[in-house]
Amino acid sequence: MADKMKAVVKTKPEPGAGLQDVKIPQPKDDEVLVKIRATSICGTDVHIYRWDKWSDSRIGARALPQIMGHEMAGDIVEVGKAVKGLKIGDYISAETHIPDPRDLQSLLGQRHIGENMSILGVDRDGTFAEYIAIPAVVCWVNDKAIAPEIACIQEPLGNAAYAVLGEDNDIAGKTMAIIGDGPIALFAVGIARACGVTKIIIDGQSDFNLEIAKKMGADHILRNIDDNHDQRVAFVKDQTNGFGVDLVLDMSGAPSGLDEGFRMLRKGGRFSAFGVLSGSDYNINFNDFVVFKGAQIHGISGRKMFDTWYRVGNLLSSGRLNIKPVITHTMMLEDFKSGFDRLMELPRKASKIVLFNDKAELEKAKSRM
Amino acid sequence: MADKMKAVVKTKPEPGAGLQDVKIPQPKDDEVLVKIRATSICGTDVHIYRWDKWSDSRIGARALPQIMGHEMAGDIVEVGKAVKGLKIGDYISAETHIPDPRDLQSLLGQRHIGENMSILGVDRDGTFAEYIAIPAVVCWVNDKAIAPEIACIQEPLGNAAYAVLGEDNDIAGKTMAIIGDGPIALFAVGIARACGVTKIIIDGQSDFNLEIAKKMGADHILRNIDDNHDQRVAFVKDQTNGFGVDLVLDMSGAPSGLDEGFRMLRKGGRFSAFGVLSGSDYNINFNDFVVFKGAQIHGISGRKMFDTWYRVGNLLSSGRLNIKPVITHTMMLEDFKSGFDRLMELPRKASKIVLFNDKAELEKAKSRM
Amino acid sequence: MADKMKAVVKTKPEPGAGLQDVKIPQPKDDEVLVKIRATSICGTDVHIYRWDKWSDSRIGARALPQIMGHEMAGDIVEVGKAVKGLKIGDYISAETHIPDPRDLQSLLGQRHIGENMSILGVDRDGTFAEYIAIPAVVCWVNDKAIAPEIACIQEPLGNAAYAVLGEDNDIAGKTMAIIGDGPIALFAVGIARACGVTKIIIDGQSDFNLEIAKKMGADHILRNIDDNHDQRVAFVKDQTNGFGVDLVLDMSGAPSGLDEGFRMLRKGGRFSAFGVLSGSDYNINFNDFVVFKGAQIHGISGRKMFDTWYRVGNLLSSGRLNIKPVITHTMMLEDFKSGFDRLMELPRKASKIVLFNDKAELEKAKSRM
Amino acid sequence: MADKMKAVVKTKPEPGAGLQDVKIPQPKDDEVLVKIRATSICGTDVHIYRWDKWSDSRIGARALPQIMGHEMAGDIVEVGKAVKGLKIGDYISAETHIPDPRDLQSLLGQRHIGENMSILGVDRDGTFAEYIAIPAVVCWVNDKAIAPEIACIQEPLGNAAYAVLGEDNDIAGKTMAIIGDGPIALFAVGIARACGVTKIIIDGQSDFNLEIAKKMGADHILRNIDDNHDQRVAFVKDQTNGFGVDLVLDMSGAPSGLDEGFRMLRKGGRFSAFGVLSGSDYNINFNDFVVFKGAQIHGISGRKMFDTWYRVGNLLSSGRLNIKPVITHTMMLEDFKSGFDRLMELPRKASKIVLFNDKAELEKAKSRM
Repeated sequence: MADKMKAVVKTKPEPGAGLQDVKIPQPKDDEVLVKIRATSICGTDVHIYRWDKWSDSRIGARALPQIMGHEMAGDIVEVGKAVKGLKIGDYISAETHIPDPRDLQSLLGQRHIGENMSILGVDRDGTFAEYIAIPAVVCWVNDKAIAPEIACIQEPLGNAAYAVLGEDNDIAGKTMAIIGDGPIALFAVGIARACGVTKIIIDGQSDFNLEIAKKMGADHILRNIDDNHDQRVAFVKDQTNGFGVDLVLDMSGAPSGLDEGFRMLRKGGRFSAFGVLSGSDYNINFNDFVVFKGAQIHGISGRKMFDTWYRVGNLLSSGRLNIKPVITHTMMLEDFKSGFDRLMELPRKASKIVLFNDKAELEKAKSRM
Repeated sequence: MADKMKAVVKTKPEPGAGLQDVKIPQPKDDEVLVKIRATSICGTDVHIYRWDKWSDSRIGARALPQIMGHEMAGDIVEVGKAVKGLKIGDYISAETHIPDPRDLQSLLGQRHIGENMSILGVDRDGTFAEYIAIPAVVCWVNDKAIAPEIACIQEPLGNAAYAVLGEDNDIAGKTMAIIGDGPIALFAVGIARACGVTKIIIDGQSDFNLEIAKKMGADHILRNIDDNHDQRVAFVKDQTNGFGVDLVLDMSGAPSGLDEGFRMLRKGGRFSAFGVLSGSDYNINFNDFVVFKGAQIHGISGRKMFDTWYRVGNLLSSGRLNIKPVITHTMMLEDFKSGFDRLMELPRKASKIVLFNDKAELEKAKSRM
Repeated sequence: MADKMKAVVKTKPEPGAGLQDVKIPQPKDDEVLVKIRATSICGTDVHIYRWDKWSDSRIGARALPQIMGHEMAGDIVEVGKAVKGLKIGDYISAETHIPDPRDLQSLLGQRHIGENMSILGVDRDGTFAEYIAIPAVVCWVNDKAIAPEIACIQEPLGNAAYAVLGEDNDIAGKTMAIIGDGPIALFAVGIARACGVTKIIIDGQSDFNLEIAKKMGADHILRNIDDNHDQRVAFVKDQTNGFGVDLVLDMSGAPSGLDEGFRMLRKGGRFSAFGVLSGSDYNINFNDFVVFKGAQIHGISGRKMFDTWYRVGNLLSSGRLNIKPVITHTMMLEDFKSGFDRLMELPRKASKIVLFNDKAELEKAKSRM
Repeated sequence: MADKMKAVVKTKPEPGAGLQDVKIPQPKDDEVLVKIRATSICGTDVHIYRWDKWSDSRIGARALPQIMGHEMAGDIVEVGKAVKGLKIGDYISAETHIPDPRDLQSLLGQRHIGENMSILGVDRDGTFAEYIAIPAVVCWVNDKAIAPEIACIQEPLGNAAYAVLGEDNDIAGKTMAIIGDGPIALFAVGIARACGVTKIIIDGQSDFNLEIAKKMGADHILRNIDDNHDQRVAFVKDQTNGFGVDLVLDMSGAPSGLDEGFRMLRKGGRFSAFGVLSGSDYNINFNDFVVFKGAQIHGISGRKMFDTWYRVGNLLSSGRLNIKPVITHTMMLEDFKSGFDRLMELPRKASKIVLFNDKAELEKAKSRM
């Protein structure tokens, strides 16, 4: 094995990133080394690429240089000596929330939101590279029947699944509104459809994305183009005998989207709060949206380790869930700049983009699309 | 309105039943009168028709004459004066478990298994008739888009839904084995498929029924023809990385079926016990099947009022669930004997049979099949 | 029986209320007539007594005159003819949320928050009287061993129990912070203590109330007198190995209290939102308090019918829960003005006040205090 | 540190065990070495001491010699180099179910019942010794305020807590029957009492143990001395308005006890199956006890890692739970034979026995009793 690899590295606290030759990392005793077959670009990566205010405060200049990326699928090529249950050749994807074993949350089955967890591609080197060393504890062994361009997307797909399922996993035969139309909202449509949500209403802004939502199984598309909040809420009420939907997912992270979602939710319904607000607080009508509504609000961060992964893996390997409509582009890792450019373009013409290290693998992926 | 109606009446504690002209019942203050559009034959009706040991002890000769049947869809034609929230013209189906409001179970959200509940067609006159008077509290208002031959089946479909969903409603992305292949098992396959169960293995005895199971969405069919228990269990283990399935439904009510189901269940899995044993007890390996397995066993009787009905109604009106493959015959009420004959024939060539009071309605139903 | 009774009537949309002789109501077919033995004053009654902005918009001048009050215990003296399962002599308390049977919530086991429910003493005549006619569906039959001055308080005690238990009833061996020190917060302390919450921290403003909290079983009292938010949050973190408490109850309905509660909650914890804000919205740090925290927020309105009542009744009749420390005054109904005066006095010197119709009953109650 | 230690070793497949000088174990990279301060005798140890049929088939002669015991509290004195989050001086107790990280159960939050887990003192050397090397993953760090003779008992106390709480942790304000009166049944009484179970009925055979049950907080004692099953069931029905209790715990592992428990359980109640049957199967009335009863049966094996530990630790360190009445004897490790003799004596005169390595520690423990 060579000792150098190609990697997309954030070097300076400014927009952009560069392709560099860097040392292949050495796995520690409790880590494995993975040869990456596919890695996909997340909205978080776009924030870091742009180096916005969030990136500057969350990561900071001192952490640089750092390899970007956190969604991936690859093969284990080396196993640390204290690792149990993993072996060379295992085809894995990585949970990106690296738990601290002594967090109270880790002890109580919530290690995905541990007080002191660290995050791949944010707190340490990421996946936009040929190899990565990661702790054994975050490895999820994939079914080999799942193609790499799909397997690498299980991390954001897990966000979507966790948001759809909430903490209670109780969705069969219920109605749902999804606010927002980014890739995770589109995945959520597919998961809701595959898992028996009987009315899926998506409320978004991009024609391009909403067309994908239809392919993923949305029953109704609400185009949030004018300031027609009341009209959209009225549509949802009309579709639900005046009560509102059982389940709302906020994927917008916008105060107006949150308001819209809470108004669409029936009394006694469940609200999955996934979208992250940029900057400002949210001035909530707490009496009407929470107390009197008897709402159940679930904060959704990450994915359950590994309950969510198990379900997502099963949905994919069974063929019940097809996420290809959301993958709008596949390309070589070295073409990452073109990927980021497409993701930053408005109006939107890209949703999920997958990067490959191997040309043959890329060609095979293209042939499967 | 005439004061007489046709009804299938059990008159004597012996096999058979007769078509009679009887008085149209008068609804009490808290009841409604329903004109029945479609009514379907349940396995329980077959027991009563045959007048087996169970019928004799559970119903008894003293209760006769009694109108048979309990699955139905129809229109409200008269409303008792203390009834709230229902009106003439409402298209309804009936929950058959009539709760006692002061049962502890009724107070705790479990009125479907109330200590002192009574059952339609068992403890009082049933639905094999032109009209029925039923308490308002058991009425479920149907979406008019659901055809009568489907709407009348919601009661057993509710059994299937409750068994599939269990008490926790947590099934998305999980694996399931169903033991038995009667109509409720076949419905369970369809519901599991519509609601994101990712591997559905059905284990039954009738080629005719197992063919329907395939149409309903079963992934694997196990033909329980030889004494090949070990082989079937091995197949399930093989399909689940050696662990067993997450969820097992017993629809067989046979000790050997229960054994098979428990062996197929993974440690920490959930077992829905729906099938009723005829006569003998079940000699269970309690240590291995319950204690050490950390199993969750849910006794399933009836359907949740009306949580299950809501989900089933949504699955039907959304088109997510299609139960037509299970409806093997439709006929006029007066032809009920032919219906019973078909249901008692071995090997099986019938599954669910729907009876109509109106020839035009029957013709329309036939055209939709 | 006489045909007139004494009642505390709100006659005009202005502060105050008057004791009047009014007609004893006639129960409808689905109602019972109850002779009231004890009735207690709620914060809502104080709002109506004062006739604040909320009363004016929620009740409105057109609804007057109306009998006040909603918390009570009494004996059934007449039973409507369509009523099942209740009889003359039954000793009952009333759930104050009167459900509409066709609300979706009513069908799904959430009738306490039905879209179209009405509320006793707000939407119709209340309990500050000698008699009341109420729907059978809201009657809870009391254990006769529970004294009337306790039994009448089960309604607000149910609020407290529901807030403590949340939707999941999962509290044993967990830690809790309660924000606010009104009667329902004090009841919550007692319930938490009786049900195995292992650390109960109450955060309030009134020395009088916080002394009661100690008697109810609080482990730690935080006096919210200065603007020392950070210090109180730090205390809670210090008591919980730096993580925060598992459970937070907001009983304050104040934005600063909500902020404090969310800061005290550990990641992955549960927040019961019970307090109602007066007027303004709440500017929430949605990212930190909901999304990243992975919080479960439960809006708590009313009490579960009748799951909460069952538990509260059991806690009282078993003697596991003693709420006497919160009952600071008992008096005759005709002295209601003195009761309201005491409840409006600042700094606080009263918490829960119970009114009686019968002098002998009052004397017995006093002897039990 | 010396390189030899005293240990109670099972050397031959026959009754008895011997005190030997053996090598102090070396912790592996993912293990810690613990100096044991207190270790208690479990019923399982008695089985192994006696070398009954179960021991012979479960452990087998080939595994011998093996150090006995699995309940303990001690201090970490050495830390393997791949261990995170533990340090020398940590005061710990050990979960005895050592999980396999790649079991499906481990991935789904159920590692206490993993398919391939191994058990301390059964599959590898145990705790009746001065030192033990154990995997870091099973260490629970104790609050130093909990005395060693209490801390070592958290393992069986966890069994009791898990059985009382079940999978849903929903017990507050409910009623319970406990079948059996061994130490874990007695702990269950205390936990139920501390956590708001409002009626606790214990059904056992030993006067000695039932006296302890009273001290632990049982409301009613049923002496199962005659064949008076019907009478005991009738008592429970009588105490619960004829319905039966909400919760039943089987701690007897006897078919007659299971029957009695199921008969005492109300329709829709929850049954925790903890007791292990010796040898024979259980001929269950599956229709009445499971299906028609709508029972929830939870197989209870081990304790949740570490949800149960967290709750148990909190109950102990808060003083809400006092288990001293169950600790009938404390003695030096070298006196283990006397301990086993007392535990095998009939009628019973001992319940839980704690062994110490240090005379001063033993004396302090005695002074705290």
